[in-house]
Amino acid sequence: MNLRSIGEQAKQSSYGLAVLTSQQKNEALDRVYHALLKNTDKILSANQKDMENGRRKGLNEGLLDRLMLNQERIQAMADSIRDIIQLEDPIGEVLDSYTLENGLQIKKKRVPIGVIGIIYEARPNVTLDAFTICFKTGNAVILKGGSDALYSNQAITKAIQEGLMDSQIDENAIQLITSTSHEDTEQFMKMTDYVDVIIPRGSRRLIQSVMANAKVPVIETGAGNCHIYLDAFADIQKAIDIVYNAKTQRIGVCNAAESLLVHKDIAQKILPKVQEKLNEKNVLLKCDEDSYAILKDHPGRIDHATKEDWGEEYLDYILSVKVVKDVKEAIDHINTYSTRHSECIVTENEKNAQQFLNEVDSACVYWNASTRFTDGGVFGFGAEIGISTGKIHARGPMALKEMTSYKYVIQGNGQVR
Amino acid sequence: MNLRSIGEQAKQSSYGLAVLTSQQKNEALDRVYHALLKNTDKILSANQKDMENGRRKGLNEGLLDRLMLNQERIQAMADSIRDIIQLEDPIGEVLDSYTLENGLQIKKKRVPIGVIGIIYEARPNVTLDAFTICFKTGNAVILKGGSDALYSNQAITKAIQEGLMDSQIDENAIQLITSTSHEDTEQFMKMTDYVDVIIPRGSRRLIQSVMANAKVPVIETGAGNCHIYLDAFADIQKAIDIVYNAKTQRIGVCNAAESLLVHKDIAQKILPKVQEKLNEKNVLLKCDEDSYAILKDHPGRIDHATKEDWGEEYLDYILSVKVVKDVKEAIDHINTYSTRHSECIVTENEKNAQQFLNEVDSACVYWNASTRFTDGGVFGFGAEIGISTGKIHARGPMALKEMTSYKYVIQGNGQVR
Repeated sequence: MNLRSIGEQAKQSSYGLAVLTSQQKNEALDRVYHALLKNTDKILSANQKDMENGRRKGLNEGLLDRLMLNQERIQAMADSIRDIIQLEDPIGEVLDSYTLENGLQIKKKRVPIGVIGIIYEARPNVTLDAFTICFKTGNAVILKGGSDALYSNQAITKAIQEGLMDSQIDENAIQLITSTSHEDTEQFMKMTDYVDVIIPRGSRRLIQSVMANAKVPVIETGAGNCHIYLDAFADIQKAIDIVYNAKTQRIGVCNAAESLLVHKDIAQKILPKVQEKLNEKNVLLKCDEDSYAILKDHPGRIDHATKEDWGEEYLDYILSVKVVKDVKEAIDHINTYSTRHSECIVTENEKNAQQFLNEVDSACVYWNASTRFTDGGVFGFGAEIGISTGKIHARGPMALKEMTSYKYVIQGNGQVR
Repeated sequence: MNLRSIGEQAKQSSYGLAVLTSQQKNEALDRVYHALLKNTDKILSANQKDMENGRRKGLNEGLLDRLMLNQERIQAMADSIRDIIQLEDPIGEVLDSYTLENGLQIKKKRVPIGVIGIIYEARPNVTLDAFTICFKTGNAVILKGGSDALYSNQAITKAIQEGLMDSQIDENAIQLITSTSHEDTEQFMKMTDYVDVIIPRGSRRLIQSVMANAKVPVIETGAGNCHIYLDAFADIQKAIDIVYNAKTQRIGVCNAAESLLVHKDIAQKILPKVQEKLNEKNVLLKCDEDSYAILKDHPGRIDHATKEDWGEEYLDYILSVKVVKDVKEAIDHINTYSTRHSECIVTENEKNAQQFLNEVDSACVYWNASTRFTDGGVFGFGAEIGISTGKIHARGPMALKEMTSYKYVIQGNGQVR
């Protein structure tokens, strides 16, 4: 597998994509929609191969479900293309425009980033999602999917390329790295000449490995050790509802709550009630000394927290619990242990809320609402390519605008310095 | 030298800086202004030590001049603080604000990045510049300056810290790494727990080394292999003026022109005239075959270009020259060899100009103006911490806004998903 030529082709392709009109891009996306549906059988039979290999390898049911495609799922994937077509194209937007005293006209214009690399695990729908968002914003994309989904990804990529060729657009706008060798993945992450940014999507382990090995700029995504802080002035019912929702509505997602902080003045009263609600889902509470003392004689599963628990992203029916003496201690604890994803304060006290919202250093900070809302779709972006927990380039849910850069276009009349 | 505690202190300091009001920051900057002037003698005597060491080491005159401080230069540094005080503080700006159907109010607010690392060479004024821009935007800064300027940097840092302490602000808002060991610099670039971004300032070698070794996100800056393309429809006088200015007005800077592309239809006519003007500065032209054939019987210094010349940033009275068959070949050549800094087309033909401006993938693209204008001050930013040649986070001249990130602040009333 010649990675350099994949990189070179993507870079070349990106120059053409950057100057397509919105109409050209939307027409091509529509052809991709039809090509995808037309190739449903081929995609399904490729997916069948991946499923058989997966079962033989002993993948667990959760992973097999993520991997599995059927008619409905392919239709849903295709429908998502129609949603992207409806979204406004950010490319070409004039972000700033002014004239200097010497007559130079400066325009700051939004442009594509260029070539985007996506490294992900065994969810074949990411293949299409990543392509549509990158293509709509005039970027070429190089995909490195998990080996468990290799045949599905190949079939989807081929269908997309068929749609592009129908539109006389360079098929290298999307390329899939089919090699499963570790060395090739490492090389991909170091192709600074061709790849402008890499976005890892998947487990914490995958993301950390990309962060540790890439030379290409990486946008850190995903891991969410999200906190809920119940202030001394918390409304009891809101507290119960928010903790229950943030912890249990869906446990395997990055915006689920993993840690509960409770003000000492309200802990005795509120913790047993929160526990009672969480007992509906048999949630295990990993408690510090103070919260353990409060809960030990109440029904429910509790255990002693160790220091490691504060940094844990359980993705399970487990929640760490700690009593704090004030909002400041809650903020310090969060800034020490969180992954800077989403955190919430439950309080009716505006001053405490503002302090929390200002001083907690996370992508999304909530006052009296579940952390589960951190999502590109919910935020109204119409799409999502990941949630950035870094602070460089993009933060929080990322969609179309986050896949863009800008350039300065300066028009003169012979000016020199 | 305990780098981890420097990192930890910077991170802690950044939380306090993030919530300072503009007035608090401006008052502190004013105290830094006074502290700097009050410490002029100490700074000058520290600089004297660096100068003596530099002479002993045999630093060339250019480097010694960059290193040298005097009363006027310190006054100029101090005056630049006053300029920064006048600039609008971008922190707290609401970039977007809307309410979802479920009543959640979402605000996207501009916040500091956190901790910024600057790695630079022997220009002690960068110590102050970097601090003022980072501090005005609520960021803590860790500086790693060149060892040749160590005593000067220490004295300037101490004066700044004195001004901060006068304002009851954590002195760790600025910290200087005084270790000159290679291992410490490497470790600094890998402190992802504490440092949010690193900006290298200096030679191409320094920048490449940071890019190659850092684990912390890096904003690539600096190197400029800038091109001027003289189109078939170029105005001859504008062409001569722009090439002469961009090549010779200041040779050691990143926005100076390093390569000249000329359309074949105009080459015979325009190249000798451009050369005649460049002869005033005895510029050496490294020519491709076609341009060599045109210029070989004219007075002036010429030589044959090798392939390496197309990628060269000479920073000298040298210019590579190539004849191209059309605007497309010029664009392709630039996208292949440029460092994506600043490029210019000289033409009276709007269609060719638009194609060039759209398709050249560089931070700044000029139509009929010298590339020398790429500068934060010229662009009206009031300051400059570097020029990004990357496309992630910031592109082109960077000043206050480019030292910021954002967060989503979401206010609810008990909403769950």
